[in-house]
Amino acid sequence: MALLTDLYELTMAQVYFEKGLNGAAVFNFFIRPNKNRNYFLNAGLELLIDYLLNIRFSKEDIDFLQSTEKFSTEFLDYLRNFRFSGNLYGVEEGEIVFANEPIIQVEAPIIEAQIIETFLINTVQISILIATKALRCYSVAKGSMLVDFGLRRAHGTDAGMIAARSSYIGGFSGTSNVLAGKNFGIPIYGTMAHSFIMAHNSEEEAFENFASVYPENTIFLVDTYDTINGVKNAIRVAKKIGTRIKGIRIDSGDLYILSKEARRILDENGFRDAIIFVSGGINEFKIKDLMEKNAPINGFGVGTELDTSSDVPYLDCAYKLVEYDGRPTIKLSRKKVTVPYKKQIYRLYRNSKIHKDVITYFDEKVENGVALLKLYIENGELVRRLPSLKEIRELSLFNFERIPETFKSLNQHMTLSPEISQGLVKTTEELKSKFKI
Amino acid sequence: MALLTDLYELTMAQVYFEKGLNGAAVFNFFIRPNKNRNYFLNAGLELLIDYLLNIRFSKEDIDFLQSTEKFSTEFLDYLRNFRFSGNLYGVEEGEIVFANEPIIQVEAPIIEAQIIETFLINTVQISILIATKALRCYSVAKGSMLVDFGLRRAHGTDAGMIAARSSYIGGFSGTSNVLAGKNFGIPIYGTMAHSFIMAHNSEEEAFENFASVYPENTIFLVDTYDTINGVKNAIRVAKKIGTRIKGIRIDSGDLYILSKEARRILDENGFRDAIIFVSGGINEFKIKDLMEKNAPINGFGVGTELDTSSDVPYLDCAYKLVEYDGRPTIKLSRKKVTVPYKKQIYRLYRNSKIHKDVITYFDEKVENGVALLKLYIENGELVRRLPSLKEIRELSLFNFERIPETFKSLNQHMTLSPEISQGLVKTTEELKSKFKI
Repeated sequence: MALLTDLYELTMAQVYFEKGLNGAAVFNFFIRPNKNRNYFLNAGLELLIDYLLNIRFSKEDIDFLQSTEKFSTEFLDYLRNFRFSGNLYGVEEGEIVFANEPIIQVEAPIIEAQIIETFLINTVQISILIATKALRCYSVAKGSMLVDFGLRRAHGTDAGMIAARSSYIGGFSGTSNVLAGKNFGIPIYGTMAHSFIMAHNSEEEAFENFASVYPENTIFLVDTYDTINGVKNAIRVAKKIGTRIKGIRIDSGDLYILSKEARRILDENGFRDAIIFVSGGINEFKIKDLMEKNAPINGFGVGTELDTSSDVPYLDCAYKLVEYDGRPTIKLSRKKVTVPYKKQIYRLYRNSKIHKDVITYFDEKVENGVALLKLYIENGELVRRLPSLKEIRELSLFNFERIPETFKSLNQHMTLSPEISQGLVKTTEELKSKFKI
Repeated sequence: MALLTDLYELTMAQVYFEKGLNGAAVFNFFIRPNKNRNYFLNAGLELLIDYLLNIRFSKEDIDFLQSTEKFSTEFLDYLRNFRFSGNLYGVEEGEIVFANEPIIQVEAPIIEAQIIETFLINTVQISILIATKALRCYSVAKGSMLVDFGLRRAHGTDAGMIAARSSYIGGFSGTSNVLAGKNFGIPIYGTMAHSFIMAHNSEEEAFENFASVYPENTIFLVDTYDTINGVKNAIRVAKKIGTRIKGIRIDSGDLYILSKEARRILDENGFRDAIIFVSGGINEFKIKDLMEKNAPINGFGVGTELDTSSDVPYLDCAYKLVEYDGRPTIKLSRKKVTVPYKKQIYRLYRNSKIHKDVITYFDEKVENGVALLKLYIENGELVRRLPSLKEIRELSLFNFERIPETFKSLNQHMTLSPEISQGLVKTTEELKSKFKI
């Protein structure tokens, strides 16, 4: 994965290398404000840590770089022994974060801090994007079960894996993605597809075949031909072969009307514990609407719009140099002024809700503030225990309760802008005026 | 990658296996109409072929499946020897396709055709999504160079790789993604980052360091502090150390005004062959606008909006069973009626432009029609030479000329709806009425 980087990271690295510029750099990763997101759920840190602990340039990588004729032998020799030897500070996965907060802080020789930039942004952005989308679904699901169904529509295989992981962190119960079950230990779920019904001579025959193989565990997909008729067929089959109906799935149509009618028919026939699971174009807005109408829905399969975060398909985020060789650095491009210096984020709570975040110099203190940036990697070594995915998920749901209620609106933009400590404001202004001269 | 599938593919497979239902199935992959896309550029087929030729369940995969207690020993033994033994028909990569056309047709024992579904949609959807977005950029760039800068904002690592590949197919000149250069042989490009400038004591010092290492090949990033001053600094440095200015890059601000002014200053100072490269929030609409105003821009770095296809972050696409065991199959869910049977797509041209597409039974003929579906894999074996990526790119650009001009509008929805042959229409109607009884 070392070559999964932008070419300029390597050409700049060669310049740093040749000019002997390898002072310690501090970079901050942060998200810029987004009017459709009031908060973000932090995720992806473990994936980044895994990368940082293992990044190496293979012989094939070096051979390829040599073939481009852009690099000197000396620099390629340097890359042969490349390791990440710096420090990584990060906010815990499962923590709520806001725009303009340095969620990740890298402190390393500038060549290293630069080469890792592309992967860092690539992996962390999508992780936060999906975790946040998932938590928005969770925030309106009133305890209904949520399952990630989006693998097929995710942007490639890695996005499908990250979506399963991030949505689990964001309060989902599991995923349809079997590999995510294997690699991350996430519970896996599945029902049946329309093609399964269509491959049989009749819906009843299809139901009977499935239920006889999974008598305790069948969720009947009822909408291939006619939803209500499908419910009746499921009941007929369950009665005929004497199995329970674990549940039914409705994947199209008016989910409110159909779920009400299906519930009535199931109850009338004594299948009161059969669950109603719905899917097909689900997002947080539809979940909210259905739950507010008290639709008798027990679970949602959320696919495409979760895995692509389709209403906010990317986060405007950046990884910016804030300090080099002990000197603060700043960028002044229009509307994109950065705040210099190695930092800390302090969080203050009031009545168990997030009240205020303050961004300070790294060694500043804020009374009653909880420091959010923690040291994970020191001099290239892992120095902090990584929690299990289950622990991260629990932390997310705990932190969810600490989000001010107003921020939980899906429509109104109510968020928290972190305060910048007086000292930081002062040095930023000084630096700005220096560069404007 | 065998486990990168939805759980239901495997539970359905177990039912098919236990019930002895393993007739030949025909599945069609198609895209549903999208009002923001008048045409699609087909891509991703080689990635799919590579998967189909190599899909295997490893011992660890089987062990994991066993641990879920959802599968019988007999079925797991079957999976141990699983191979894709079917046929794959596809439209060539680099061909223009339209909504509702069966771009990919899989003919295989139903278990196999089902297990591969998730990966197929996952990989082909994002490939087409980005290739199409890229070709839209190409369609308005008037020959300006286009480079994929989106890796960092792509949804994970695989999306970044596919974006590089698909955008190259769609007319881009290359990518910043070094690994895509290595794995796919795509030309790689890069300039320098703001952090590089900021790590130096001054912009001039940064420029001088870079240009002395890459005297023939430096594109100066001029907008870290003040763009016009940055251009002047680049000129000062080039004159001082006697290098050429390969180009400058502007990453923020009013690109029209700044490029005009930069061009004037460069020309006045004798750097007439220095190119002006712009980046930062670029998409096809901005390229069109800048090109129509005759902005003196030679190249565009297109990042986030390309790699996430942010205006159309996913394609509504499906992989539907159209035939099982010689019998046509159909789905009637609201608004989602499928057309049964194994098919062929014929294309008719008029004045060298795409005139009409006709979807027929597989063995039907259409006079003067060119058959678009070609056999790539037969009984599990590759039977058709795969073109190089460069050939695919050339085919795309050749096919681009065959798109009717009206379809090239970025705003108006003008597209082609494929005709369904009379025979197919008739059997579809017959089948619909049969199932509606």
